[in-house]
This record gives sequence, C-alpha cells and structure tokens, in this order.
Amino acid sequence: MTKYSFFNDYSEGAHPDLLAVLARTNLDQEDGYGKDSLCQQAEALIREKLGSPQAAVHFVSGGTQANQIVLAALLRPYESVIAAVTAHIAVHESGAIEATGHKINTVPSQDGKLRPEQVQAVVDEHTDEHMVKPRVVFISNSTEVGTIYRRDELLALAQVCRANGLYLYLDGARLGCGLMSAESDVQFSDLCTALDAFYIGGTKNGALIGEAIILQNPQLQAGFRHHLKQRGALLAKGRLIGSQFLGLFERDLYFQLARRANAAAGRLAAGIKAAGYPFLTHSTTNQIFPILPDALIERLQALYGFYVWARVRPGFSAVRLVTSWATPDEKVDEFLEDLRRLGA
Amino acid sequence: MTKYSFFNDYSEGAHPDLLAVLARTNLDQEDGYGKDSLCQQAEALIREKLGSPQAAVHFVSGGTQANQIVLAALLRPYESVIAAVTAHIAVHESGAIEATGHKINTVPSQDGKLRPEQVQAVVDEHTDEHMVKPRVVFISNSTEVGTIYRRDELLALAQVCRANGLYLYLDGARLGCGLMSAESDVQFSDLCTALDAFYIGGTKNGALIGEAIILQNPQLQAGFRHHLKQRGALLAKGRLIGSQFLGLFERDLYFQLARRANAAAGRLAAGIKAAGYPFLTHSTTNQIFPILPDALIERLQALYGFYVWARVRPGFSAVRLVTSWATPDEKVDEFLEDLRRLGA
Amino acid sequence: MTKYSFFNDYSEGAHPDLLAVLARTNLDQEDGYGKDSLCQQAEALIREKLGSPQAAVHFVSGGTQANQIVLAALLRPYESVIAAVTAHIAVHESGAIEATGHKINTVPSQDGKLRPEQVQAVVDEHTDEHMVKPRVVFISNSTEVGTIYRRDELLALAQVCRANGLYLYLDGARLGCGLMSAESDVQFSDLCTALDAFYIGGTKNGALIGEAIILQNPQLQAGFRHHLKQRGALLAKGRLIGSQFLGLFERDLYFQLARRANAAAGRLAAGIKAAGYPFLTHSTTNQIFPILPDALIERLQALYGFYVWARVRPGFSAVRLVTSWATPDEKVDEFLEDLRRLGA
Amino acid sequence: MTKYSFFNDYSEGAHPDLLAVLARTNLDQEDGYGKDSLCQQAEALIREKLGSPQAAVHFVSGGTQANQIVLAALLRPYESVIAAVTAHIAVHESGAIEATGHKINTVPSQDGKLRPEQVQAVVDEHTDEHMVKPRVVFISNSTEVGTIYRRDELLALAQVCRANGLYLYLDGARLGCGLMSAESDVQFSDLCTALDAFYIGGTKNGALIGEAIILQNPQLQAGFRHHLKQRGALLAKGRLIGSQFLGLFERDLYFQLARRANAAAGRLAAGIKAAGYPFLTHSTTNQIFPILPDALIERLQALYGFYVWARVRPGFSAVRLVTSWATPDEKVDEFLEDLRRLGA
Repeated sequence: MTKYSFFNDYSEGAHPDLLAVLARTNLDQEDGYGKDSLCQQAEALIREKLGSPQAAVHFVSGGTQANQIVLAALLRPYESVIAAVTAHIAVHESGAIEATGHKINTVPSQDGKLRPEQVQAVVDEHTDEHMVKPRVVFISNSTEVGTIYRRDELLALAQVCRANGLYLYLDGARLGCGLMSAESDVQFSDLCTALDAFYIGGTKNGALIGEAIILQNPQLQAGFRHHLKQRGALLAKGRLIGSQFLGLFERDLYFQLARRANAAAGRLAAGIKAAGYPFLTHSTTNQIFPILPDALIERLQALYGFYVWARVRPGFSAVRLVTSWATPDEKVDEFLEDLRRLGA
Repeated sequence: MTKYSFFNDYSEGAHPDLLAVLARTNLDQEDGYGKDSLCQQAEALIREKLGSPQAAVHFVSGGTQANQIVLAALLRPYESVIAAVTAHIAVHESGAIEATGHKINTVPSQDGKLRPEQVQAVVDEHTDEHMVKPRVVFISNSTEVGTIYRRDELLALAQVCRANGLYLYLDGARLGCGLMSAESDVQFSDLCTALDAFYIGGTKNGALIGEAIILQNPQLQAGFRHHLKQRGALLAKGRLIGSQFLGLFERDLYFQLARRANAAAGRLAAGIKAAGYPFLTHSTTNQIFPILPDALIERLQALYGFYVWARVRPGFSAVRLVTSWATPDEKVDEFLEDLRRLGA
Repeated sequence: MTKYSFFNDYSEGAHPDLLAVLARTNLDQEDGYGKDSLCQQAEALIREKLGSPQAAVHFVSGGTQANQIVLAALLRPYESVIAAVTAHIAVHESGAIEATGHKINTVPSQDGKLRPEQVQAVVDEHTDEHMVKPRVVFISNSTEVGTIYRRDELLALAQVCRANGLYLYLDGARLGCGLMSAESDVQFSDLCTALDAFYIGGTKNGALIGEAIILQNPQLQAGFRHHLKQRGALLAKGRLIGSQFLGLFERDLYFQLARRANAAAGRLAAGIKAAGYPFLTHSTTNQIFPILPDALIERLQALYGFYVWARVRPGFSAVRLVTSWATPDEKVDEFLEDLRRLGA
Repeated sequence: MTKYSFFNDYSEGAHPDLLAVLARTNLDQEDGYGKDSLCQQAEALIREKLGSPQAAVHFVSGGTQANQIVLAALLRPYESVIAAVTAHIAVHESGAIEATGHKINTVPSQDGKLRPEQVQAVVDEHTDEHMVKPRVVFISNSTEVGTIYRRDELLALAQVCRANGLYLYLDGARLGCGLMSAESDVQFSDLCTALDAFYIGGTKNGALIGEAIILQNPQLQAGFRHHLKQRGALLAKGRLIGSQFLGLFERDLYFQLARRANAAAGRLAAGIKAAGYPFLTHSTTNQIFPILPDALIERLQALYGFYVWARVRPGFSAVRLVTSWATPDEKVDEFLEDLRRLGA
C-alpha cells in the first residue's frame, strides 16, 4: 500500500458535483442513445461556450474510441493520418487506427508537438498511388509529454493543413489542462477557428466517464451517428455522459478542475526543481517528467505510485508524475519531503 | 409529454443501490483500465455465481461493443457467424460485425430463435473456399422478440456446434429476464456448460452502464484485453462498470430486478389478453408484442411512449411494450385502463 | 477423363488473336502499373465504343477483385450494398465485400434479377443510425442464372437509384453474353446512361485474364488508382491486361466471341428442350439450367463435366451447362446424342 | 523517346519460353481457380526444388497481393509486423497492410536489412495491451536497395523469431537475384529451413505475371485458399500463373534469368565505379544506386529512363538503375559511354 498514487489523473471516480447530477436525474425517464434531454442541454452549452452554433457535439465513452471513430469517419480507405511518433494513436491504442484500415505517418518529435514544416514534408513525399495519401493531421493538447501548443502554433498548423487539403484534428484527452496552463494563450473559442474536429476530454478531468467530440467543419458532420453506432460507441444510456458534461460546463467546473490539477503539478515541479533535479520536457500542465537517479526512483516507488517513463542516461531516468483535481496539497508536500529525505 | 414510456428498459438511470456503490467508493484511488479492486471483486463474484473458476470476465460499456469484439476475436478473416434474421447483430448494429470484416449468415426465424437443423443446413451449404466458413452461432436470450430458450434447446444447439467445430455465443443484453422467465429452466450455471462465450447485460437490467463478457472456453481467452483496447472498449475508469456489477451480484440484485421487470410485463400482458388482443410472439419476459388496431395504437401513442414493431395485416400492427425494474404497477394499470377505454 | 467440360467458360486459355497481341508486343519496353501504351490504347478504344469520353477505365485481374474494389471505393464505412440473394457477391466471393467492412442487404430473387420496388423497400426499411445505410445497388448482366435485363428494366433501376441517392453498379463478368442475347435490346452505349459503374468481363469471354472497370460517374473517379494499389490490384505488368482488351475491342472480337458462346448454348438448349426437358430459368445466354432426372445426371457426369446446381424436387435437379467461344458444335451435338441415348 | 529504360525489371513481357508454354497449352480444357494440371505440376516442381514436401504452394498475381494476404492470414487483429523503414510494405503498398487492420512497426535501416537485435528491441518495447503485439518479421531478399542476406544472417533472424514466438516472412519479389548474387551463400532449400513463409517472385524475373507463395510452416496452411478468394486473388484462369512457374522451374530458367539480370547490373556497376562514382548501397544484385551530380543526372535522363532515388547531399543524388534478364550488354555499354561523355 503506497502513500499516494501519481500514476494518472483517472485514479478517482468523479468530482462530487457530477455524481450529484446523476443522482438528481436518476429516475427521470429519458430517450436512449444520446437523444435525451441531458445530452441535449450539454451539447447546447458546449456550443455556446465554444461560440460555435454550427459545431456538432457527440459524446463517447473514451479517448481511444473518440480518436478511432473520428479518424475513420474523416478518411477514405487509402488515406492516412500524420502524427508525432509519440502520439497516443501511434503507440498506446493497440493499433486502433490501423484496425479501421488506415496508416499513421509518424514524424519525429522530442516535445510531443508537430511543426508545419514536418506536415509539409510528409505531404511532399507522398506523390502517387503507390503510397498512402495523408489527409488528417493529429495533434494533442496538452501533449503526451505535458507540453502545450500556443495560439500561433495552432494557427500555423491550421494554415499548412488548409493549404494542402488536410483536416486538423486535436486529441483533447487533457484539453482542460492544456488550455489552463499558465503559458497558454489559446481561448476555448479559438479551437473552432483552428480545428476541423477535436474532442474535449472528460475522463481525465473529473468526469466519471466521457469525452465530447466536436465536429466543427460541417463537411464532417453527415452520418456521424452511424459511425458511432457501427463502432459500438452509442450508449443506450447516453444520459450518463450527457449528465457529466452538463455538470462540467454548467458553472465552468471543467476549467476549475484543470486549473487545480495544473496547480498541484506546478507545486510538485517547483519543489523538485528546488531540490536540484532537471526535467525531460517543459511541462506547464498536470503531467511532469523529472529526471531522477535510478536508486532514488526505486526508493520513491516503495512509497508512491508513478511510472518510469524513459531511460535518459546510465543511472538516470525520467519518471512521470500526474496530478488531478483531486490531488491534495498535503500529498504533494509529503512527496517533496520524501524526495529530499531519500535523495539526500 | 406522455404519461409513461414503455419504449425500453433503459429509460432510467440506475437502481439506487448501484449509485450507492459509486458514491461509497468514489474517492478511493484505483488502478485504471479494469485492473481496479472493484472490477476484480466483481469478476470473482461472477465466476463464483456461474460456478466456473476458469471463466474469463471482461467488462465493456454496451451490447453492440460486446458483440463486435467477441465475434471479431473468435473469427479468422474468412469466417462467418450464423444468426437469426431478426438478430440484433443482423439488423440493429449498423453493420458493426461486417465492419470487422465478417459476414453474417442469416436464417429465417419467426420467434427469434435458432434451431439445430438450421445451423446444420448452413454448415452443409458452405462447402468450399468460394464461400465463407461459418464458425460461430449467435443467439440471444431472451430474444429480440421476448422469447426464451429452454435448457434442452440450448444443449441441442451446443451439441450441433461442437459436432461441427462451431462456437456458441449468446447475446445476454436481457439475460436476466430470460433466466427469470416463469417458463425458463436454465440455471445461471448452465450457461457455462452450454456456451463458449456470452455476455451478461447490465445496461438493460438496472446498471448505469455495462455488460460483462464471459469467455468460458479457455481457447478464446488469450489476447482479449488487446482486442478490447484496439476497439476502444478498455475504459480508463473501468471501476465504473466494476462497481455496477459488484452491486448487481452482491445480493443477487441482478435476478431480483429481472423478476420485477418480468412481473410488470406479465401484469401488462394479462390485462391486454383479458381485453381480447392477441400477441405476435409468446413472450414471458419484459418485452411483449400485442397486436392492436392501428386506430387504437394512434390514440395510445398520444398518452404513452412505445414502438410500433410490425404491420401484421391491414389495419392491425404489433407494438412493442417494454417494462423494467423501475416500472410501477400503477403505470401498468393506468395503461390497461386507457387501453380498455380507448379500445371500446 | 471426360469427353468435354461444360463446367464453365474459362476452361481454355485465350482466343488465339489475344495471344498474338501478347507475342507481338512482348519485348517492347513499357511503363509499369497500367501506364503503358497498350493499356492507354485499350482505354481509349473502350471509351470510344461506349460513346463516353468521360468514363474512367481501369483494368484488374478478376471479377471478385473488381467487385470488391469498386464497392469499397463507393461506400463510406456504414453504407451497404443491395443485391439479389443469388448475387455472386452475396454467395461466391467468400465474404470479400464484408472483408472491406460492408454489409450486403440481400433480397429474394428467383431469376437472379432485382426489381425497383425491392430496392425501394430496402431503402424504406433503413431509417436510422441503428441500421446500415444502403448506398449501392448491385446487379449482374447476364445474371448468375443466365437471365438478362432489358433496357427498360435497367433504366427503371437507374431511376429508383437516382431518386434515392443510390449508385447503380453492374457486375459484367458475362456482359458480352448478356448484351449479345437474342432477347437483349441493351446497346453497349446504354450502359453509360443507366449505370454509375460496371465492369466488362474479359476472363469469361476469351481473354487470358482481365476485367475492365468503368467508372462512368465522375464523382467516383478520384483516387481510384490508390484503391487499386491498396487492394493489390495494380499489376506491375498491367500491359498484360491492356493487350487483352486491345485485342478484344480492336475488331469487336469481344461481341463476336459472346455471340458464339450464346449460339452454342442456344443449340444445346434447343436440343435439350426437344428431348423434353424443362429449364430452371429462362436463359438466352451461355449458361443454361435444364432440369434432369438424377439418374440421368449421374450417367451424364461420367461423360461430361458440369455442376449440379440445385435440387428441384425429389429425383430431379437442375444442372448448369456453360458454353464459351471455344465450344465446338460437335461437342454440343455429341452431348445431345448422349442425352437422348442415356435418357431413353 | 529514350534509348533504353533502366526504370525497372518488369518493362518487357515474358521470357519467350514462358509464352511458349502458354501457347502450347492454350486450348486444353483445365479446371479453374488454380486446380488445373499446370498449377499442380508447378507446385510439385517447386516443392521438389525446395526440398520441402510439406510446403504449401499458392500462386497469386502480384507482390503487394502476396504480402497483404500472407500477413493478414498470419496475424490476429491486434498483432503487428516488424519491418525496415524502407520495406515495400511500409512505403510502397499504399497502406495495403494497414487496410487489413494491422500496424507495421518500422525500424531504421540504411541497407534495407533487419538485424536480430532490432527485432528483439521491438518485442521488448511492446509489453501490454495498450500496444500492438508484434507477431511477424518481414524481410526482403534482395532488399529494396539491392542488398542481400547471407545464410548466417537469415538463420540468426530465424532464431530470434523462434525465441519470441514470431513468424519470419520473406518478400521474394527479387528472390532470384538475391540468391544468384555472387556474394550469396543461401541455397534455395535453405529458405524452408529459415522461413515460415515467403514468396518467389515471377513478375520481376521473366514471368508475364505471378508470384508463388510458399507456406512452409504447417500451422499457417489451413484455410489459405479462403484467404486468397476473399482478397480477390484466386484467378479463374489460375493456369496462367501455373504455366509461368512451370516454365520458370522446368529447366531452372528462374535462376538463369536472375543471373543474367545480375550480370548486366554488375557490368553497369563496374563501369560506373571505373568512371569514379560512389554508390549509396553495396548491391550485388540487379538494382544499383550510383551517386551522381544532379546536372549529370539531368543530362542522362534525356537519354535513359531511371528513377532519382534520394538526394544525398547538395548537388548530388542517388539514382536507381535496374537491369533484367532482357537487358542487352550493348545497352549497358551505351549507357556507360554516355555517362563518361556527359560526365566529363
């Protein structure tokens, strides 16, 4: 039994306010498959917050499902998606994208981000029918290594996409933390300007379950409920996810929870930095990657849950520490104390 | 606003006991992706109730997902599944099975059930490599039209499957109601004797979400978590489904809720029969299909929610009325009163 | 060793004129993958004969490949194809269409043909996202049971397709025999009026190998070489198929060979009819289905190769006799003599 | 009009001996779909030459088709194939492998070859169900850049595969040239010792069409004709490919043609080396990659057909020159003369 788990941001159930919505609406009879009043209210609310009346909103149960269905819906059989070699779809979805028939063209990335010139290079290489045809650019914000896109970076990617007939799609598993980063200048409503499609992650930001897929580009909206049903994503009790998103956006809880997660990570990072340790990436979100001596890592693992991320050099590895809306300051401070004590 | 909805058995949230498990465990830190203690307890409990220590138990979010993943896992690319023409996979899953590359060989059925001789006939027709090779037999209990399999019928199907090297799979979206039917002689533990794989439906029997896939045949168990992940079915907060099944099986709530749903349907059917109307199928479960004059149907639809199922003859259609654990006797009685009044 | 095989119309190699084109061009250096001068000439010639300058022409090696690639190219993931229950894609392609992810909606047919009202009925049944969305109508001419479509029948199907936003696709494995039937009033150029896409079968009409896919509808033409490559259909030596179609259409050999095949079948059918036997279908093409006593069939099978097609009633079965451009009149007459002798 | 094309080794039709087999057998009536006597003789002959009575032999029309079908047959849905980043399947098959649902795990390679330690590293990285499970190792011989595997290298790969439960598959599009390289010590019969499956390329070694798939591992043989049919690879006139392979192996023509192609490339390479130009890879087969000044390349392209392969450094690129059994020495000498003249 460890003192605390920094393994991930989905170790707890849901924020109590979201359980309250569930309880409050539990015995109301509602329509099935996402046509209930809770989903409808949540969809309207999200469109309003995004400032995009044209956006189509669909709720699904998880991020891999969201990525798989959106990409399969956007691509013709011979088309591919461009992504960083570190992208979740490229590594940690057990081939879910390929299972729908599509290649991922990966490009190198140290910080988990894609650059416009990398996108252009992939497009330029794919010249004829012996090769796949890139059609979608996949990015994450925050990325798999805690970094974020700034507004001008997003718009530059959007520009290279439009110039080449590509769609720009953003995996928002940790969108809240990405947007609430102290260094972010991206507004929620900027997303609809820059992106053709994205999803707003609920599971890793306080919801019991659920992600909200946003199809901003009207050309991508037709037939999407068919795609959802065919991939097993249309929940009979869609109300469950609708209620979570209603709770998350009613009083901007979504952004508050992300800020709390980022603050906990910031407190943790500051302490680790003060103790003299460097970091693998420049993270201002709720995942941080300090580089620690392997012996210290081993001692810490006896007390705390977290993943060893990558061997950096002999005797030193980067670990991943993840905080959430539920992470108490005391646990952060306790970790820092143990770090100092054990690292001495 | 109608008086009451008989549209389906997933109009409400969850049985209050299941919300209570959620609330009780909400802030415990748990492992992700179904490796949490709630899932583990639920799995052990289900194996115990089934009397099958060897069974592998996996939780997923819905029935289409369960069917799609199990069938894709059982079949090689050129293999097919045999099902009744009324089967959920054949009609109401938007081609989810074909989307994984497999043909469904449908056979005629009035009562939603498959017979061993039909299975044998399909096998006999598929003789060479110009045709698919049938490998799985798909059945439902209760079926899509409310009927049930008796124990000897299940065992006869199992026998024809084994004789032909086929797997027998059961869609248990409404397994509780099937087993709790007054006419059923199938024990919960019989399932592991007759079937290679099945799922226990939670969504339509009181859970907020979730189905429990049972892989009884050890040959089918390897790699299944890979299949789940690849199809987007491995929930980060798998604990959500684990907690539902823990609540459902801790004190046999699963069976009690099914009995309540069947009892409500029985009360409804008895009243309709007494009013002189015939039925499309012989249902002893929570879906009944009375045949009513179209004019009466129209008047009833102004007051109650339900689907018109099929035109039976000019001026008469079968409707589908579905009850659940949450259906109050007063609503049943109110419907019967309105039926008599409006049908007079 | 039998006297002669009526098993099929691909028992021989190629018409000698087509081998001559191969030999004549054998050592010319040509571009690969269908960009050679032989393919280009053949494409231009076919467009000219069809009277359709806009048609895209692509060569592939076989009929299943043609059907699979065209249908996969026309359909989005959740869309389906409507076909007769006897259709080649529904029965004899080992699930090739489903392997690309698509359901086939089959409708009953005695004569292998589809009717507009059947198409409309399937469309009308598929109302929401719980079901696939029909998008293509698949027909064959001649059909799998030797029958043909008349011009008004094709146009009526085209009309119901256009009215419902469906594509009309024709499998022309035996298109030559279909068009050259004495009862056909369909001109070669009518095909481009009625159909969105089809293929002209070479393998079963004298070619060593090859089918010519015609994409008449310009909306279907983009990216098709990508589809071909991705499904393994772009032959490095595409010239092989180009040369066959050049030979077939240079001096209308394609139509002459079909007429010869039909004439041989007609001679055979007339003799069988004169001997007093009925037929399963009304065929005026190169596949005929006489109904014979089982005992006679057995005796004939000792001397000739042919398939028993279907048990018609106790003691009597329909057999399939297929002729080709290569069937000598003497073999037909010899069969008829044996039929009379053995049937006496 | 250029003087000569060094674009590829499939610019001509077939070796005249292979056309002769076609002509000789043209009007014999044969069974369809690869069950003819020509295929049967060719299969037996290949098994004999391989010294492997247990090997299953199947003929298909092209290399992409062979790769796609074999890999799809070997893999379960979540399994992947390991290949060099330069592999044909990774770059030049338009996503054919992904179209069957499988990820390719690519590893860096300068010389087109895979090393056992690279295979082991990929296996070691793929630890759980969030990632695909590598199951097949894909290699080519000769490789896409003209290099070859030596016997000990093949056996070392076989060993790492067996130790990790992987299958070893070889793409033999240019197997003849690989085996006939002056530096090769691999015997034809060694293939069955080292490999689970491979294909013998005909198209690029003198055949009009066709590749012979060899399934050496008995576990991989079941159901393969179903796989072929389902992917559109079972040619009605399979005799066409059978006759080519009969001609290729009857008097060891296969190996003679490969030696001739290699000799032409060797003559070309020697002349280019003598003229002072370096090479991108160490090729002893029929594809060579000299590095030339861009200005010279441009002048040569006015006279000869060939591809520019890769920019090596500013002002210099590697080109690909391919020879075949049909390449006359005079054309090689003419090219060398022009190279000296234009490069002066």
